[in-house]
Amino acid sequence: MKKLINDPNNVVAESVEGFGLAHSDLVTVHPDPLFVSRSDAPVRGKVALVSGGGSGHEPLHAGYVGLGMLDSAVPGAMFTSPTPDQIIPATLAVDGGVGVLHIVKNYTGDVLNFETAAEMAAASGVDVRTVLVNDDVAVEDSLYTAGRRGVGGTVFVEKIAGAAAERGDSLDDVTAVAQRVIDNVRSMGVALAACTVPHAGTPSFELTDQEIEIGIGIHGEPGRHRIAMESADGITSRLLEPIVADLSLERGDKVLIMVNGMGGTPASELYIVYRRAVQLLGEQGIEVRRSLVGNYITALEMQGASISILRLDDELLELWDAPVHTAALRWGA
Amino acid sequence: MKKLINDPNNVVAESVEGFGLAHSDLVTVHPDPLFVSRSDAPVRGKVALVSGGGSGHEPLHAGYVGLGMLDSAVPGAMFTSPTPDQIIPATLAVDGGVGVLHIVKNYTGDVLNFETAAEMAAASGVDVRTVLVNDDVAVEDSLYTAGRRGVGGTVFVEKIAGAAAERGDSLDDVTAVAQRVIDNVRSMGVALAACTVPHAGTPSFELTDQEIEIGIGIHGEPGRHRIAMESADGITSRLLEPIVADLSLERGDKVLIMVNGMGGTPASELYIVYRRAVQLLGEQGIEVRRSLVGNYITALEMQGASISILRLDDELLELWDAPVHTAALRWGA
Repeated sequence: MKKLINDPNNVVAESVEGFGLAHSDLVTVHPDPLFVSRSDAPVRGKVALVSGGGSGHEPLHAGYVGLGMLDSAVPGAMFTSPTPDQIIPATLAVDGGVGVLHIVKNYTGDVLNFETAAEMAAASGVDVRTVLVNDDVAVEDSLYTAGRRGVGGTVFVEKIAGAAAERGDSLDDVTAVAQRVIDNVRSMGVALAACTVPHAGTPSFELTDQEIEIGIGIHGEPGRHRIAMESADGITSRLLEPIVADLSLERGDKVLIMVNGMGGTPASELYIVYRRAVQLLGEQGIEVRRSLVGNYITALEMQGASISILRLDDELLELWDAPVHTAALRWGA
Repeated sequence: MKKLINDPNNVVAESVEGFGLAHSDLVTVHPDPLFVSRSDAPVRGKVALVSGGGSGHEPLHAGYVGLGMLDSAVPGAMFTSPTPDQIIPATLAVDGGVGVLHIVKNYTGDVLNFETAAEMAAASGVDVRTVLVNDDVAVEDSLYTAGRRGVGGTVFVEKIAGAAAERGDSLDDVTAVAQRVIDNVRSMGVALAACTVPHAGTPSFELTDQEIEIGIGIHGEPGRHRIAMESADGITSRLLEPIVADLSLERGDKVLIMVNGMGGTPASELYIVYRRAVQLLGEQGIEVRRSLVGNYITALEMQGASISILRLDDELLELWDAPVHTAALRWGA
């Protein structure tokens, strides 16, 4: 294993420390228990958004802390849920007096630990709601999940709910818009090559030189099937078609699309996938109104990509376009 | 070779087409001969900036086309210089009547082809100047270069000269500030694992499981030496010390630093390198005023990183902070 790390035990702490140094205008890093908050938190009178999960998916979640998005992010160990001991102070620290929304990717450990933390925070008098992101159409249950996994759609939930909170929506309304995003977003990914978790020291799964895995999870969990390598255009169809079917997208629908790199994929390849996705959607009369192409939710240095599609309505589009200033997404501010 | 591509012959064309679809608010893609221009070009009365080079280093250069940075970018084939046939129309298309600056990374093919294009554009009545970026301290001459190679410092040159052009500086002044950046920026990189150029189909060089290459070029050209894998902190010292020495940085100097991923390196590892770099500079009384951490000049999916440092003065800092709106860098606009 060759990685730019020191001790595998310190990877997350040192990385988050570096993140805090690089973005000290945006965030404060709380080292023990570890969480990252907006430097101006708590924002009085604003609903606060908290998310978190295993590390290794950067820029998710700390890269999305800032104006118009998250108030705090809770990094667990690599590919390991954060603990209630972290989530509770991350919740209390950002409560602006009008409630906190927990945005949780649907993995068993995350769900349990956020649930425990929400109960404890509620006992301290904070009004906490939770939404579960479960946008991955690849599989129903999997290695770490009952039901569908939460993947790239999480970025859309955090951005759009964050904009709703920033404009002053109530906890009920922010929760409702987050849920509306979840109801209208689907994702699917592909792996060409696995990543190596520092602690493990060996690749998280094996693919031969000729194989790819369709429907891969962001921890290398099994997907739908392994197939022989094929063209980018072919792979794009395999990712896109189940999403379009599951969302029941129809001619005239407007969408936001993300073509996301898993961490080890050149940008040039992501744009080739994006090109084909736009062509395929266009052939079906589905209009791409906004897009993201890049590394937004990764699996360390995994080679591969995922596609996420959100069906837009006017309000979701307006909230997407609202100002955001975080380490990984910035416009209008 | 597993890549998200179709025909290796079409990788650049399809990727740039996808880039144009994703960023149609910012750029226009001219498919034949291939170049990418600001969608509002030519901007009358503004000095125009043109850069280009082999593809495979995305977001360089097309990702830096837009307000406050480049007016056009000319993508060559993978790791291959663009031709005068591309550079000439890319120059003529963006000339706003007050001259064009060519920002050229110091590789023999790029230098020759930009020189030819500059002569042809001049023959058409356009005032063209050229700056050569040669910031890589690793080696003097190399596989594709006489003198030092141009690498990460190019991002700083494009941003700062772009801001000078945007505020209305003359061609002389824009050229002078670009040269001042070049005179004050140095870079050095490391590779942990090679990339594969689609046409070649095999890795561009070989490193064993225990080896890394210090001073690697962005095409996998040999660096200073191969050493056994060591800690991120140790590697950071090896990259930083030659830069600090070559720039003769002293206590009290203010710098802009970029910790750049080569394309296949997780963000978490880049922040570990950044953390150590800030510590080392701090110990020497050198003040980090601004920073970038991420994939800004890559070598396809190469695993590794580079550090670039620019000695700042007040004007360079002001120009760095000026608004920019491109696919890969955006603030203040």
